[in-house]
Amino acid sequence: MATSGFKDTLSPYNQPKQIPPYQDYLYKQYETDVSLDLSKKDCEKPIGVAIFGLGRAGSIHLSNLVKNPRVQLLYVVDDIPSKWHKMKAYWGLKSTMFLTSKDAAKVYSDVKVDAVVVASPTFTHEDIVTKSLAAKKSVFCEKPIAEDIESSTRCYKQAEMVNKPLFSAFNRRFDPSYSALRDRVRAGEVGHVQMIKVCSRDSPLPSIDYLKMSGGIFHDCIVHDIDMATWVIGELPTKVQTTAFSHIPEIKAINDFDTVAILLTFPSGTIAMLDNSRHSNYGYDQRLEVFGSKGMIRADNERPVHCNEVQLGYSGSSFAPIWFSFPSRYRMAYYLEMEHFLDVVRGYAKPMVQGFQTIAVSKIATAAEKSARTGMTVELKWTEEERNRKYS
Amino acid sequence: MATSGFKDTLSPYNQPKQIPPYQDYLYKQYETDVSLDLSKKDCEKPIGVAIFGLGRAGSIHLSNLVKNPRVQLLYVVDDIPSKWHKMKAYWGLKSTMFLTSKDAAKVYSDVKVDAVVVASPTFTHEDIVTKSLAAKKSVFCEKPIAEDIESSTRCYKQAEMVNKPLFSAFNRRFDPSYSALRDRVRAGEVGHVQMIKVCSRDSPLPSIDYLKMSGGIFHDCIVHDIDMATWVIGELPTKVQTTAFSHIPEIKAINDFDTVAILLTFPSGTIAMLDNSRHSNYGYDQRLEVFGSKGMIRADNERPVHCNEVQLGYSGSSFAPIWFSFPSRYRMAYYLEMEHFLDVVRGYAKPMVQGFQTIAVSKIATAAEKSARTGMTVELKWTEEERNRKYS
Amino acid sequence: MATSGFKDTLSPYNQPKQIPPYQDYLYKQYETDVSLDLSKKDCEKPIGVAIFGLGRAGSIHLSNLVKNPRVQLLYVVDDIPSKWHKMKAYWGLKSTMFLTSKDAAKVYSDVKVDAVVVASPTFTHEDIVTKSLAAKKSVFCEKPIAEDIESSTRCYKQAEMVNKPLFSAFNRRFDPSYSALRDRVRAGEVGHVQMIKVCSRDSPLPSIDYLKMSGGIFHDCIVHDIDMATWVIGELPTKVQTTAFSHIPEIKAINDFDTVAILLTFPSGTIAMLDNSRHSNYGYDQRLEVFGSKGMIRADNERPVHCNEVQLGYSGSSFAPIWFSFPSRYRMAYYLEMEHFLDVVRGYAKPMVQGFQTIAVSKIATAAEKSARTGMTVELKWTEEERNRKYS
Amino acid sequence: MATSGFKDTLSPYNQPKQIPPYQDYLYKQYETDVSLDLSKKDCEKPIGVAIFGLGRAGSIHLSNLVKNPRVQLLYVVDDIPSKWHKMKAYWGLKSTMFLTSKDAAKVYSDVKVDAVVVASPTFTHEDIVTKSLAAKKSVFCEKPIAEDIESSTRCYKQAEMVNKPLFSAFNRRFDPSYSALRDRVRAGEVGHVQMIKVCSRDSPLPSIDYLKMSGGIFHDCIVHDIDMATWVIGELPTKVQTTAFSHIPEIKAINDFDTVAILLTFPSGTIAMLDNSRHSNYGYDQRLEVFGSKGMIRADNERPVHCNEVQLGYSGSSFAPIWFSFPSRYRMAYYLEMEHFLDVVRGYAKPMVQGFQTIAVSKIATAAEKSARTGMTVELKWTEEERNRKYS
Repeated sequence: MATSGFKDTLSPYNQPKQIPPYQDYLYKQYETDVSLDLSKKDCEKPIGVAIFGLGRAGSIHLSNLVKNPRVQLLYVVDDIPSKWHKMKAYWGLKSTMFLTSKDAAKVYSDVKVDAVVVASPTFTHEDIVTKSLAAKKSVFCEKPIAEDIESSTRCYKQAEMVNKPLFSAFNRRFDPSYSALRDRVRAGEVGHVQMIKVCSRDSPLPSIDYLKMSGGIFHDCIVHDIDMATWVIGELPTKVQTTAFSHIPEIKAINDFDTVAILLTFPSGTIAMLDNSRHSNYGYDQRLEVFGSKGMIRADNERPVHCNEVQLGYSGSSFAPIWFSFPSRYRMAYYLEMEHFLDVVRGYAKPMVQGFQTIAVSKIATAAEKSARTGMTVELKWTEEERNRKYS
Repeated sequence: MATSGFKDTLSPYNQPKQIPPYQDYLYKQYETDVSLDLSKKDCEKPIGVAIFGLGRAGSIHLSNLVKNPRVQLLYVVDDIPSKWHKMKAYWGLKSTMFLTSKDAAKVYSDVKVDAVVVASPTFTHEDIVTKSLAAKKSVFCEKPIAEDIESSTRCYKQAEMVNKPLFSAFNRRFDPSYSALRDRVRAGEVGHVQMIKVCSRDSPLPSIDYLKMSGGIFHDCIVHDIDMATWVIGELPTKVQTTAFSHIPEIKAINDFDTVAILLTFPSGTIAMLDNSRHSNYGYDQRLEVFGSKGMIRADNERPVHCNEVQLGYSGSSFAPIWFSFPSRYRMAYYLEMEHFLDVVRGYAKPMVQGFQTIAVSKIATAAEKSARTGMTVELKWTEEERNRKYS
Repeated sequence: MATSGFKDTLSPYNQPKQIPPYQDYLYKQYETDVSLDLSKKDCEKPIGVAIFGLGRAGSIHLSNLVKNPRVQLLYVVDDIPSKWHKMKAYWGLKSTMFLTSKDAAKVYSDVKVDAVVVASPTFTHEDIVTKSLAAKKSVFCEKPIAEDIESSTRCYKQAEMVNKPLFSAFNRRFDPSYSALRDRVRAGEVGHVQMIKVCSRDSPLPSIDYLKMSGGIFHDCIVHDIDMATWVIGELPTKVQTTAFSHIPEIKAINDFDTVAILLTFPSGTIAMLDNSRHSNYGYDQRLEVFGSKGMIRADNERPVHCNEVQLGYSGSSFAPIWFSFPSRYRMAYYLEMEHFLDVVRGYAKPMVQGFQTIAVSKIATAAEKSARTGMTVELKWTEEERNRKYS
Repeated sequence: MATSGFKDTLSPYNQPKQIPPYQDYLYKQYETDVSLDLSKKDCEKPIGVAIFGLGRAGSIHLSNLVKNPRVQLLYVVDDIPSKWHKMKAYWGLKSTMFLTSKDAAKVYSDVKVDAVVVASPTFTHEDIVTKSLAAKKSVFCEKPIAEDIESSTRCYKQAEMVNKPLFSAFNRRFDPSYSALRDRVRAGEVGHVQMIKVCSRDSPLPSIDYLKMSGGIFHDCIVHDIDMATWVIGELPTKVQTTAFSHIPEIKAINDFDTVAILLTFPSGTIAMLDNSRHSNYGYDQRLEVFGSKGMIRADNERPVHCNEVQLGYSGSSFAPIWFSFPSRYRMAYYLEMEHFLDVVRGYAKPMVQGFQTIAVSKIATAAEKSARTGMTVELKWTEEERNRKYS
């Protein structure tokens, strides 16, 4: 009876209660629901929200707003009125007013609107952001805030002046696997970071029409990778080396790249390696790895149905493919991002993405593109203010 | 330039469009949302729903009903009025009427109520089910339908007579990993099944108060395992061998078991091995494995943040724990189960869980318990009708 | 410079030396080689060995003996002289004498022979074992020692009397993954074991000629599974419940089974679930799992090239198949088993597999077969001596 | 009896024989042993071998030579005679002559010596290689062949002139996971390679004495990474961008780096990302990844006991650490490398590592170091002959 010698002397009923692990975010949500915790969520006075744009990102944000008990969706601003009826029928939007952008003024002048969600085309961002801030609305805006660094900077200054949040949507920061990784790095678990790697490969290949107006791979995609690297380690790089290529002729024809590799060198000795592709044929490949003096943490690809192993004959074990694309891979991140923004609106949280951060990311992306196009190493200089604020 | 010889002759823009894999259920949801597919979801005329009971399962169902654009939650029947105010505030339930069970008649007589969700204590089920069916409501009921097989059978007969669905909530059938496994087995991928294994270990240990009124491990837990086995292979067993033990003294004191192992033998030669524990200290362990002449498929434990690998020193690689308990492990299953029920109510789908199936599962559980208590093999006989209907 | 705050204050050169983890058995071997550790391995006076039989197991043992600096292979006893020349040429056996079994007496009478390895057909075992022991040789014997329990018992008694090891080859005990699992269980890491599972599925399907003389699935295969279960937990079962089936007609025709499931119940409340198949079409499936009050440890299938992940299109991730069959899956176990036996011969170690253990395993297998054939639960009784010695 | 409908119509005995998967290299070895395949292995006339140097690599090669039936180890040349006795006792080297390097001439003049294995300090390589080739011996030499590119080139020319193999030991090419990956890439499975990543992190940290005479991280370590990249894709890069850092003060003090990241750009558009560290504290981290238009293949870290999962409490799942260091990680590679060399000596195979390849690798490493030290991009030019031969 060898192992009965290891029998617990106490019954589990006399041992400490089993506590859910911090990683189980769904159980935490369940506990909040069961306890009816109102500390961040009084739904009796819902937050009045208007949303601009119902494209890819807009649809995702809409689905999170519609199902949210603490939100009252007051306005949808969308320039395809032919879809309005179907949209109302599908989402059950009985008390929401639909407008075209011509009539957007109604949104700004309605005092019941607490917050504006901007998911319309990039060229419209600055106008909506500026007017919303002027009307003292909190703003959630898909990146970029404006079409150039100077305009974006002006918007952030306006937000500071009116003391309202201008939140730039960097959704990946809210992914449970990435934020868990960052928490551990920032707690010092791997020691001083010596290497951080960010890998992003898009799926499916975006249409060439989209790519033409995307701002290019550096400003459309790689800003996310740069944000990941700098957000995790909290430092700004001073040296950028890039190499890039266009394997797909249509992308070459518009003078863009489909494949990019970047080295960032940071003052403390940390090195970042980023690689990005517009076209993965096996799913949306998103990985992050941090190596330091005390060890290594990495976030590999998440996948649906992640534990079904199939072995038929001697061809090996197969598992489900990784998530197909951003709406499924980052569904939870989008949800948590919107929850966070609503907490910010209510004053329960400070914005996790700050203006100077998105400005810095843009500068690094610009330098990276310059290195790709010239073949030369590009140095980055930061003001003392930038160095002091940075990402700490 | 060895590998450039493998360059695609066609640009990806001239190749077939990339199609999301069937496993990516979230992307499918996104596509449905973007396309505003109304085929199963006209939210303009929402389904009127009443819910009885707001305990563990009730809270989960409530969260899925509240966020659902095609549902109008008309009544909450709950016997703790002191919580009503908080519940309204938390879930934003402005137009929902709260009642105690004394006033349940209002629910049955309200023609706007299309469907009733029963999540109240077991002893109340039969009464609510019977009255709801009599009032021509569709019914979703947590297992068991009633306190014995005869009463349950009567309820199902009533449902047939009034031609309304009486849906017994076997949530695991809706889990994406389990249903994907079953689909592959039923498509013949592993050939004739020779062995099916179901492993279920609960976390956290339920309170002894709960266990006293749970009906015992066979009828509270193992019915799910039996349902998994029979639902996957579509056959009813004719021989049951069980061994069981109580390691926890409080459980022994109420004449229940905390650890059970079962062998089921099926006429076609398939063998099922089931094992169940009331107390896993590392999370909610839920696994399923099917082995046949052509190969093996298994659904191992799902976990949150499932791809973050941590390596600190030579202690090995560590990954996040598995889900803590049923509300997180089966959150998606609960959501899909309710969506399925709403589809059934609307007439878009036939109920995936049928009455005779839950009755058969109860009979097998009873036989398994008898084998545990007598130490003997128990034979099971099925009528020709049962054998013909079974789970195919 | 957030993470530079976590910089080590000491250079790694001033920190404790990095120590290899205990799991890295190959590095340990390397360290032994580099340090020329002679404590267990003086090759100047090699161990004189004779081997009987060069079939499947014999070939494997031969390969480990031939490459072993501390072994001098003196005799090969094999009844196919036509292969001798090729065998000498292939293995470089210049100084080894080849004999047929008729001349086996030369082996017993040669005082330079310290140890005899028996890998000939089962019906020859008892004779070789008996004569070898009589001649004061140490004996390594493939299971079974003899054709029935009584004869085996006599052999073990003879071994005790002549004070020479009679080592029965239960190779799985030497597998690094299984022995690591057992070490952890025996250190109490999972507490009192509540459930132990052993899964074994053979690959490829053995020939029907082999099966006819194999002794049947219970004595040929399941003895290994029973040994695993009892060796890990160190206890003898008192109740056996079995169900079995023959899916393959040729196996049914010889009154054997190809699929078996067994429940063993132990006095301390531990339950073992064993399942065995003669025919896996995806590789040699060998798994072990132990669940206790403090957690769970499992040894899943090992595979060659175990970390090459392939993702081509949206069909998912694929990994190499598991090992095809026992010679590859247990190659390291065979090597370590022979090293252990040589240590026993030299007096550096006590035999890890003891006679009474293999006798007990045979008794349990016999009971399991009886349960399969009668459909009834079989009780097992053990003498006080057996209970006291058992597997602790 | 749903799944019995999928029963095979043919018994497995009437189906095609089960064939071992190509990945199971141990089963293949077993089959070769059982079949006594002499096509590459006539051990009756063993290959006469001399080995120079018994340090780290030397010990590993010695262990493979000693156990090899087709080798007769004639000479060990080693300058620490005090260890000779122990070495003979440990390895059972009765008929091997031990010499100091002063007496090395005996090796060259002995016609029974077919092959020389050079594992002595780097500064001695050129002399041994030159004299061995002059004496018409086949040569296996640890990298580098000589201390500079010119001398190495001379050695290779000499080998061509005397028509004897001069084999440079790039052990990683023989690792089953890496060679399987390369085979698949060269078969076009991922299409044209767009990105190849090589990650190498050493464990344990080498002594500073070793590092002083190592030739620096670029020529000691990164040559292996460069070889992996170019060997897998079969192309030579034309642009090199490097960034490097010394986190460890002792390494900075000798003007070396401990952390290096490199981008290589190839004419066909392929990009390689290499990163290397002298100091991983969690094991010997060795990874390879290839991404192309048709998919991705990666070789992640192998580990001993790779399938034992431990779950104790809610701290997550843990697995064994990865291999500690090169002797365990690449044990099989070292074995296969020596087997390959012996095949080359016997004329059964052409050398898998060719002189011009190691020369090209050295040139790229030199360029990478230049980029690290200057901060600038370095262009690489190749002669037409080099481009034409390259790695295809």
